[in-house]
Amino acid sequence: MYASQNILDMVKASASQRDLDVASLSEAITACLECHAICVMCADACAAEPHATMLARCIRLNGDCADLCEAVARVLGKIGTPHPPTMRTLVEACIETCQACAIECHKHEAEHDHCRICAEACERCAAACQHVLNVLLEGPSA
Amino acid sequence: MYASQNILDMVKASASQRDLDVASLSEAITACLECHAICVMCADACAAEPHATMLARCIRLNGDCADLCEAVARVLGKIGTPHPPTMRTLVEACIETCQACAIECHKHEAEHDHCRICAEACERCAAACQHVLNVLLEGPSA
Amino acid sequence: MYASQNILDMVKASASQRDLDVASLSEAITACLECHAICVMCADACAAEPHATMLARCIRLNGDCADLCEAVARVLGKIGTPHPPTMRTLVEACIETCQACAIECHKHEAEHDHCRICAEACERCAAACQHVLNVLLEGPSA
Amino acid sequence: MYASQNILDMVKASASQRDLDVASLSEAITACLECHAICVMCADACAAEPHATMLARCIRLNGDCADLCEAVARVLGKIGTPHPPTMRTLVEACIETCQACAIECHKHEAEHDHCRICAEACERCAAACQHVLNVLLEGPSA
Repeated sequence: MYASQNILDMVKASASQRDLDVASLSEAITACLECHAICVMCADACAAEPHATMLARCIRLNGDCADLCEAVARVLGKIGTPHPPTMRTLVEACIETCQACAIECHKHEAEHDHCRICAEACERCAAACQHVLNVLLEGPSA
Repeated sequence: MYASQNILDMVKASASQRDLDVASLSEAITACLECHAICVMCADACAAEPHATMLARCIRLNGDCADLCEAVARVLGKIGTPHPPTMRTLVEACIETCQACAIECHKHEAEHDHCRICAEACERCAAACQHVLNVLLEGPSA
Repeated sequence: MYASQNILDMVKASASQRDLDVASLSEAITACLECHAICVMCADACAAEPHATMLARCIRLNGDCADLCEAVARVLGKIGTPHPPTMRTLVEACIETCQACAIECHKHEAEHDHCRICAEACERCAAACQHVLNVLLEGPSA
Repeated sequence: MYASQNILDMVKASASQRDLDVASLSEAITACLECHAICVMCADACAAEPHATMLARCIRLNGDCADLCEAVARVLGKIGTPHPPTMRTLVEACIETCQACAIECHKHEAEHDHCRICAEACERCAAACQHVLNVLLEGPSA
């Protein structure tokens, strides 16, 4: 698992007075940001392929995954105030969407390297979000 | 329940070949868009109040709610391809966040009219999303 | 020009102590929200068409336009604190993107009704944003 | 200047058939993603400070900067289809907003380390976006 050093520095500065697993949080934010951008790029690359119609489901899941990852990156970044239990549900939705997008992208990875890279980004993001769920957001969902 | 005529026209045009409850979908998209924008405005108005620190939790929930509503508006708009079951989880997360934001905003409505208007927008959005869950997205969550 | 009543109520509540053209602001926020959602829907409908590859440029401009409109809706909603001159540049970028997207969508309107509706939403949004530039954001760009 | 390896891999895969400065593009996307997330975190940390009202302008510029950076990250990621000249205007708006946010954040950096880190992220993003303007998007603005 990997975190951007800049993100890690900011999480540490924001969380100075709280007892948080800053490494796990930084890794999840980093993974969400990268998955967000990579999904946007994969959708655009798919739309430019000669057989874009075959990739319609991939384009759509890329879009959903990008939107979810961005929402999770924003929500996880707001660590200065107590999080509502609803954060769990959002992160769960993100994990499910990342997994669905990874499965779809893997189907096209032999033809399209952008789909392979996107599938891997989705899997990293799902794993980092699952880790945050386990470590930071344990307890019953709302 | 109310839908923007422009949104309704577009949902009809996009869904021409599918058997969809276009009214419910258009109402939910309209409610999400309005709740998104109204939450952004409420957060900004709260930050400009003399006692912004007392409104920190409101600002934060406004931000989460804006992000979730925007993600749901985007995801519900992609009706041309089959939706994954994960759409349920996202809409559920949106409903929970709208409800949490409405409860917080109601606490401040006596002092701040923007909080009252925001609470009502959150309640409309939660109701419209719940209706979409019941009508369009029935079936077990992923 | 048209504004959502809910958006108008919120703009009035947020702007109570300031001398603002609330009608123009509300119309622009409403137009941006609708154009954002309609562009997302048009991109998804294009991706599902049998000749999606011919629509690649339309899908791409839809995506850009959706992103810009959403950013402008957020920025225009933050009326509680003085706006920086940079707001002008963002609104100008949105107008240009709306115009480019409208031109592209008009090319496909004979075949695809969703492209016609999207072109019209882009034109409304460009006009409403131009009006806000003229009325609310006059003065030299930064 | 620094780029995420994952972003760089994806830019290379998406741009395989085009003659692009993939390093500059990857650096700008990375900088926009990080600045987006760091601005969201700074706004949230500011709202939780005892003197949040003094930070209202900072919170607002953080929000604008987050929204612009996210839009630019999305737009720069869509490299598969020819970009419109309007991309220039958006990137210019982003640079201006990053600079305005950096100036404001620097005012609070003695008291708040999150503002110092945010100012630096804004400066990195402005520089990376300016480099993309010079290298990839040269030519007259629309």
